[in-house]
Amino acid sequence: MLETTIAAIRAADEAAMAAARELQGRLTKPAGSLGALEELSVRLAGLAGICPPPLPESAAVAIFAGDHGVHAQGVSPWPQEVTAQMIGNFLAGGAVVNAFARQAGASVTVVDVGVATPLPTEPAADPAVLDPAVLDPAVLDPAVLDPAVPRLVVASVRRGTRDLTVTAALTRDEALAAVQTGIRIADELIDAGAGILLTGDMGIGNTTPAAVLIAAFTGADPLDTTGRGTGVDDPTYARKVAVVRAALARHTPDPADPLGVLAAVGGLEHAALAGLILGAAARRTPVLLDGVIAVSAALAAAAFAPAAVGAMVAGHRSAEPGATVALRHLGLDPLIDLGLRLGEGTGALLALPVVTGAVRVLHEVATFDSAGVAEK
Amino acid sequence: MLETTIAAIRAADEAAMAAARELQGRLTKPAGSLGALEELSVRLAGLAGICPPPLPESAAVAIFAGDHGVHAQGVSPWPQEVTAQMIGNFLAGGAVVNAFARQAGASVTVVDVGVATPLPTEPAADPAVLDPAVLDPAVLDPAVLDPAVPRLVVASVRRGTRDLTVTAALTRDEALAAVQTGIRIADELIDAGAGILLTGDMGIGNTTPAAVLIAAFTGADPLDTTGRGTGVDDPTYARKVAVVRAALARHTPDPADPLGVLAAVGGLEHAALAGLILGAAARRTPVLLDGVIAVSAALAAAAFAPAAVGAMVAGHRSAEPGATVALRHLGLDPLIDLGLRLGEGTGALLALPVVTGAVRVLHEVATFDSAGVAEK
Repeated sequence: MLETTIAAIRAADEAAMAAARELQGRLTKPAGSLGALEELSVRLAGLAGICPPPLPESAAVAIFAGDHGVHAQGVSPWPQEVTAQMIGNFLAGGAVVNAFARQAGASVTVVDVGVATPLPTEPAADPAVLDPAVLDPAVLDPAVLDPAVPRLVVASVRRGTRDLTVTAALTRDEALAAVQTGIRIADELIDAGAGILLTGDMGIGNTTPAAVLIAAFTGADPLDTTGRGTGVDDPTYARKVAVVRAALARHTPDPADPLGVLAAVGGLEHAALAGLILGAAARRTPVLLDGVIAVSAALAAAAFAPAAVGAMVAGHRSAEPGATVALRHLGLDPLIDLGLRLGEGTGALLALPVVTGAVRVLHEVATFDSAGVAEK
Repeated sequence: MLETTIAAIRAADEAAMAAARELQGRLTKPAGSLGALEELSVRLAGLAGICPPPLPESAAVAIFAGDHGVHAQGVSPWPQEVTAQMIGNFLAGGAVVNAFARQAGASVTVVDVGVATPLPTEPAADPAVLDPAVLDPAVLDPAVLDPAVPRLVVASVRRGTRDLTVTAALTRDEALAAVQTGIRIADELIDAGAGILLTGDMGIGNTTPAAVLIAAFTGADPLDTTGRGTGVDDPTYARKVAVVRAALARHTPDPADPLGVLAAVGGLEHAALAGLILGAAARRTPVLLDGVIAVSAALAAAAFAPAAVGAMVAGHRSAEPGATVALRHLGLDPLIDLGLRLGEGTGALLALPVVTGAVRVLHEVATFDSAGVAEK
């Protein structure tokens, strides 16, 4: 499935991009006056292979949740149980991602790909024994894209990763299972009508594997890829940098083998997000990236399939320094830069109206000719 | 009316701001993780005098349109008729501002405060002879805030300003009439239920008076306040800078006399926008600033009433260099920075979901206590 997905990812359609550039020049506004929105509309035309590209009226946030063995090294001040507790908060509609999703009219799908502690709304069967290749139909709401009802998909690969300072976080099979879950979620959401996917994540400690992934894929120094996450003090930050450095030294991850990198130093939500991005790219559907977890996963997706970058839109510049390193490596400029470092998909949701607006211009704005407006 | 409006503008409510800061600390997210949105929510609580501040569900864009005698100096490559033609485009729903307003659910009110050439939908009576203190009820749509129906208000003070390189652009009475029109539009929109006002503008040549206003109020050099507007070539740019410099030398505008500055070197839409901002501030209603025309008017509003800055939210950083000079003088950080230089209110509309989202967090997000989520 991963191979067929990668094989389906195509380069941007040059003719559609040329048509979008030409159309931008005829609309009733000075040429170039919409700044970055104009080039964004051109990229999305190239992705869709048509001008104008479809207006992404239905947006879907997929929040992948997992826990991390490296939490034992004291890289986060938050107890691991918060991952599961926040899933309860997402399903009850009480988190920031829910508030922003309601405002944007986006649906919220929470996917347990590897939470360590019991979910507040855990079904009777042990999610760890579910076949991660099969989404549990019992927990699927039929109205997949209903913005009013957050839903839970249990597709747990294992109850948290192993401690990457001691051993590989995941086996290759486990990492592959998470990537494939991401692909399948992308397919399901697009089949249900989503015109754009937004990445979300939840996992106490997950900025540490993100920092290792970014260093592994870009070659940057851990000091430049490691941030303070949800807010760590100086001693914890020093420990975190040391953990990232030690993980790189122990595993010497090879960026040409993205599955190996995800297995050695990744997280289940990072792997699943890489799959979501690949799945969206294979369907020529834009995927709006949230923060540092998303862009670390995007580096893995780009290593699997360089053309997948054409489906990526950088939602915002996270306050985490590694996000900027990753965005530079991907050649992406973020749409929003407001110092957010919350994750969950919140930064992507704030950027969604900018993306929709960029496409809407191509659909709805009059030309000089049609409006009877003189040109310079 | 101007004096009573200025007298009604109060400093921010410290108790409401403290309550907002305290609430931000109890919501289910790491402290500070919403970056600039947290301080924005605190500012809006201070403006409203209550925590949480009202959710601005109904947003209204007011586009003030005018023409400029300085157009005769060749500061723009566009014919002056485009101002009136674009009003036709706004009323037909074909401009970028309409596309963005439909997406955001915002109403669009176009106010002719001084267009030089006939409007495409001109009423039978000559708008130049209307008393600008009385909005023409014949052209008022009863559904003031209907996002689907752009409406026109004819409140023309004169058919374009005089050439500021030759004489004062306006008399003090004309400038005052435009400021008062802005105040009255703010009152009308807020009375109709608008929870937030967005500034818009249309006027071929209006970046030239904006550059003079910004230089006059901040003391910055014309080279730093003058940009290429809708796209001027090198000779036109040099001429534009020379015009700005000549206007400052001729009028020596006194920043302590904002009405005098607006009269000498402003535009009718700049003066009306200053009034809109003052009117919003007096009603403790946020006003989301668009680009360089808006921020030049905001400098005038702040000169009339320094506390009016508390009602201002900078929507975006225009590509025009003068916008950055003005924002720095006002102490405002813009929410969006995407190289836009279109005006009309487009940058403010793109930022609207960020403002609404910042307030929504205070209304809808669960606390650690209520959600049963552990703290660090």
